[in-house]
This record gives sequence, structure tokens and C-alpha cells, in this order.
Amino acid sequence: MINTKTYFSHTDLKGMEQRYRAAFINSLGGFKSVNLVGTKNKAGQTNLAIFNSIVHIGANPPLIGLVVRPDSAERHTLENILETSFYTLNHLNEDIYEKAHQTSARYPRELSEFEAVGLTEDYKNDFFAPFVKESTIQMGIELRERIDFSINGTIFLIGEIKQVYYPAESLQADGFLDLEVAQSVTCSGLDSYHRTQKLGRLSYAKPDKWPDSLK
Amino acid sequence: MINTKTYFSHTDLKGMEQRYRAAFINSLGGFKSVNLVGTKNKAGQTNLAIFNSIVHIGANPPLIGLVVRPDSAERHTLENILETSFYTLNHLNEDIYEKAHQTSARYPRELSEFEAVGLTEDYKNDFFAPFVKESTIQMGIELRERIDFSINGTIFLIGEIKQVYYPAESLQADGFLDLEVAQSVTCSGLDSYHRTQKLGRLSYAKPDKWPDSLK
Repeated sequence: MINTKTYFSHTDLKGMEQRYRAAFINSLGGFKSVNLVGTKNKAGQTNLAIFNSIVHIGANPPLIGLVVRPDSAERHTLENILETSFYTLNHLNEDIYEKAHQTSARYPRELSEFEAVGLTEDYKNDFFAPFVKESTIQMGIELRERIDFSINGTIFLIGEIKQVYYPAESLQADGFLDLEVAQSVTCSGLDSYHRTQKLGRLSYAKPDKWPDSLK
Repeated sequence: MINTKTYFSHTDLKGMEQRYRAAFINSLGGFKSVNLVGTKNKAGQTNLAIFNSIVHIGANPPLIGLVVRPDSAERHTLENILETSFYTLNHLNEDIYEKAHQTSARYPRELSEFEAVGLTEDYKNDFFAPFVKESTIQMGIELRERIDFSINGTIFLIGEIKQVYYPAESLQADGFLDLEVAQSVTCSGLDSYHRTQKLGRLSYAKPDKWPDSLK
């Protein structure tokens, strides 16, 4: 195990060139939950954007959070969500991660990223926003709360999970969804994509015993 | 590619048995950023807890967010952060992920999880809170903002990254930190741990060209 460390102080972090700091700080948290967010405005124009700032908020009700930067390519997504309240989250897999990355280009408002990158809009069960047909795990979300982070102008959206589509083979008996069976990928930093290999599931931790490996 | 899907409606999600729903909903977002959070109260008692609800908030200033459930094993961490403002984030690797998972057991307040699971407190550069010596990427964080999510009683902490320790070999010329060189792992659901294998880095997306693979 590598364990000799180099150090950046707060002054070092502040002094970094802007793009270098963005790459570095975006790498720090660890591997991230990355999804394509599908939206449609009231005029019927669709939008698709990649987000890696997704976080679990709670299971009952089922809530998921999303950090949005309103001055970026993410602004059309934000406008559509605020206008209609509905959006979809769609996992990336190895077949589509390059197309997913390409949605972050600044396309003009009138060109849908679905069309620009070659992904397919998928509508079902009366959900307003488009799912991504090529994605193996899809969620239909309804906006529940918007919080503005005054500290840096980002916006946090909390949505309730209303519909879920998943490959039957990926669901285990206890409710765990095996994302490797679904072939979902993860990302790190601003632009790095990774497949995973399971080390193991561990049993619920109790003070008086060491965790067992689950099947 | 598997792509025949099964469907859960909102009614199905609401009707799930509680533990099953927790396992399912926690799996949905994708692979997660998982870190050990190290804290110390004013009396000198340390605490260590695993969190997989970590999200990038911004690079300038360098901010990172953390969702805390105050009714869980996470409450001692929350108390210490609110009392002192300082905490550390420490990546997991294959050598320590089982010990990291075990910190989620409900140990009594007076027993430090560092001692209970066999990880080592590491103090440096006058930072108040303990780092995890066995972790290859470590951050010293100062609390900047607390937001209470009324929707489900969880608490969101935004902290500023004040110190970073990382293996020199993992830092690339453009600021990207290669988490595979640092041997960091990711998690999914409530209890599944994974190593990763890089598919590639992709160039900054522009509307008129397809992304290149970076080295």
C-alpha cells in the first residue's frame, strides 16, 4: 500500500490556477454517482445533461438530491425542472458513457442533447420527462424542495423518486440492487469513467462482532 | 447489454418493507463517494464514522457537502462537528474497508471507533480533528454552513477543505487525482464495496467535436 503523502495547505488550494483547482477539488470526494438528467419544457423541447453531484437523502419518502450550477451547461436542466417539476435520472453504462459526457457541451437551447449525442427519448407510464432508453436503471423524479446555497450560488434540488425501472436480474432478495449486473459505471474528477469490481457485501455492523461477508 | 426492465411504481416503493426499501433506495443513485469522518470533542474524545452521502459543492472556495442522519450512529459525529467546527474526510481502500464498515456499529459514546475497529489517529499541521493514518487521501475540513432539510429531518453540512494529503504518484499534471493509484474504493447500497478499473478520461466536451480519450 502506497502511504507516503504530499500536502496541500489552504493557501496552496487558494493559489491554484482555476482549471487545475477544479480538476483537483472535483477528484477529492471519491468516486461519484453519475447520472443523465432528462427534462422537457412546457413547449415540448427536451434536454439531457450529465450530473455527478447526486446524493441519497432518504428512503422513506424516497428522496434524492442534486447540486446544480446555474451558470453552466446545467442551466437548461434547471429551468426545465423549475418549470415542470419533473425530471429523470438515468445510469451510465459502458455503451453510453462517451455520449453521456458529450451532453456537457454547450449546445444551443433549441437542439436537444438527445439528438445531438445520439441517445433515445423514452416515455412511459405517463411520466412527463423523457427517460434515456439506452440506460439500464432509470428513475422518474418529482421536485419536492429547492435550497439555494448562498455560500457559492449553487442550487440543491431534492426530488422524490416516483418510478423506477431496473433489470430484474440486478435485484437481490433483500432489496439490494446489484449495479454491476446492471453494468452501471462510476466517475471521478471531471472526466474519468470507471467500471467496478465487487470486493464484497458486509453484514449489518454490531458492536460485539466483526462483519461477515454476504453472498 | 441487458435492457429489459422491471418497474416499481410510487405505490410499490411506498409499500415496501422498511429494510427492503432502505436497501433498494440506497442502491439507486449509483456508486457513491465513501469516506471515514474523523472528529474530536472539546473533552478530547474522538469518533470515527463511515459516510457515503458526500457530494462536491464547489472548487472555489473548495467546498464539500455531507448528509447526516441525526437519529443514527452518525449523531456523535454531528455533535462533535457542531461543537468544534472541524472534521476530517478519509478515503477507504481495500486494506481498511471492513474496519471502516464496522465503525457504523452503535458503540457507546466513551469508546472511540478508532480503538474499537483498529484504525490509527493521525494529527498533523495543527489540525484539531484526527485523520485516519491508514487512509491514502485525507482532507481537513472546517464547517461553513448547516442546512436542515425539513422534508425528512436530515442535516446537510457544507465544509471548506483546508488541508489535503495525497500520494504524490496519484496527482496528474492537470490537477486530476488518480484515485486508482491511491487505491481508493467506492461503495453501493448500504454495504457493498468495490474497486474500480478505469475506462478512460475524456476531453472537455465541445458542441462541434466528439470527445477524445485523454492519457
